[in-house]
Amino acid sequence: MLVRTFVPAHITAFFVPVFHDDPLKAGSLGAGINLDKGTNVFASIETGTLERHIHIAFNGEPVGKKRAIISYSVADELVPNDFVGEVEIWQYFDFPNGYGFGNSAGGALGTALALSYTFGGTWLKAAQTAHRHEVLNRGGLGDVVGQLAGGIEVRVKPGGPGIGVVDNLFFEDYRVLVVPLGRLSTREVLDGDVVKAIEVEGKLALEKLLRSPSPERMMLLAREFAEKTGLLSGELLELAEELDKVISTPSSMIMLGRGLFALLRKDEVENAIGVVSDLNLPYDVAKIHEGKPKVGRWIG
Amino acid sequence: MLVRTFVPAHITAFFVPVFHDDPLKAGSLGAGINLDKGTNVFASIETGTLERHIHIAFNGEPVGKKRAIISYSVADELVPNDFVGEVEIWQYFDFPNGYGFGNSAGGALGTALALSYTFGGTWLKAAQTAHRHEVLNRGGLGDVVGQLAGGIEVRVKPGGPGIGVVDNLFFEDYRVLVVPLGRLSTREVLDGDVVKAIEVEGKLALEKLLRSPSPERMMLLAREFAEKTGLLSGELLELAEELDKVISTPSSMIMLGRGLFALLRKDEVENAIGVVSDLNLPYDVAKIHEGKPKVGRWIG
Repeated sequence: MLVRTFVPAHITAFFVPVFHDDPLKAGSLGAGINLDKGTNVFASIETGTLERHIHIAFNGEPVGKKRAIISYSVADELVPNDFVGEVEIWQYFDFPNGYGFGNSAGGALGTALALSYTFGGTWLKAAQTAHRHEVLNRGGLGDVVGQLAGGIEVRVKPGGPGIGVVDNLFFEDYRVLVVPLGRLSTREVLDGDVVKAIEVEGKLALEKLLRSPSPERMMLLAREFAEKTGLLSGELLELAEELDKVISTPSSMIMLGRGLFALLRKDEVENAIGVVSDLNLPYDVAKIHEGKPKVGRWIG
Repeated sequence: MLVRTFVPAHITAFFVPVFHDDPLKAGSLGAGINLDKGTNVFASIETGTLERHIHIAFNGEPVGKKRAIISYSVADELVPNDFVGEVEIWQYFDFPNGYGFGNSAGGALGTALALSYTFGGTWLKAAQTAHRHEVLNRGGLGDVVGQLAGGIEVRVKPGGPGIGVVDNLFFEDYRVLVVPLGRLSTREVLDGDVVKAIEVEGKLALEKLLRSPSPERMMLLAREFAEKTGLLSGELLELAEELDKVISTPSSMIMLGRGLFALLRKDEVENAIGVVSDLNLPYDVAKIHEGKPKVGRWIG
């Protein structure tokens, strides 16, 4: 049996981390965008072997438990203990790992949904399993609930699935430009001094957004957040300013990765691409993914 | 400006009503199915008149405030007080009113989403407004949160949007047969003696479903619930038994309407239709609507 899941890439615009000893109560406040590119997970389940085996591969390459601890933990929890056979989890990422696209949560949630679909379970329990292991292994705090909500989401009450509350903004037909330039360690940022500024500016941005909720305002507040926390500075800020000359809504920084994202109206796509390609920078243009991740039997 | 929303028809399989003085805390436990047919709402907003006017029409016919009190209340709350112009809300229903398809919630939620899209707001606030007026006017307790969840939903914690928690079952490619035979007053049922049986049997069904969650089991438990509460009896029960001869998963009763529904595998559709059309009964076949309701600008 082959099951396929798609989990959108999730870009955080601004956030407030909320830590808690109970991983289901840990989470974040903030806002973000889900893309129609992201993580595809194919789960192949075959019986007929003598032992219970779980294998995971990233982009076609087998990975060990250490590099894929979150997805291995999810799979180990959701494959029944008495199952005898081979479980292969093939995860394919449209964006590079560690660049702030929620790949870790995408792999965890995609794995949880595929295995729950196969072995029994519900959406909520699968999502809670993914969130729990994301938090315990410090993969992320808000990606799973953001990805479940789809669209342009606003985390108004922190926590995992069933506990946190996620709102959605209405939006018109936007494209999303992403400029992924490098990794930024979530752990290092959250362990550093900047975390206090993030808490203050993140709460302020959320309050302001809810007072007058729109995607354009979210981007404006994201940019304020990125600059005031000091996360966006130097060359990356200069690039954002270059981009802003040809688009109507401010670009901002991918939280957390060394990269930018922007909402583009259809008639702005060409000029925005012009700016980044003139500088020989990598970029991608995606649509916004509405609604939940996808799960289903895969007939290849 | 013209905005269109689609809200799926929502059939409750079994339920437990949960009353509360705070309408956002009132709701229900239970399970249900969302269809790809339901309520389409077109909101037309025009300025240039001298007063603030709100008009509502059901299936093309203007309706007064009394007959559409829920949607009028929603619209009156979401159209700004200082707006001067004409707001026309055209609601079209694929199924008859009062037959248990969640039309009242569909109209309320569709109206709330369309007006929030137009005048500002978020999904959560729009949905809470719809739920609140549904509860205050006793339109329903669980339809709005069920319709927001989409798919096959399980209400595991009662309450309105942002408070109640709704889970989803995984499902394969099913069609839904509906046999709508008449009205059943939710108010009368909930005011009657049967409410105690509903509470006992509804809780039991939910517990059993969560222990082993699947759409097939939901239908089996729905049927047990319908029979044990005494809501399904007589001719309607006989019809359910006739249907069950040609399908693999038990049919059950639409809560609350005089009617039946059933999950059909593709190869069962023809025989199931045969049973109801031989008896000259009205019927419809729909797909399951996954994900959220739809909202967007309408270019007619």
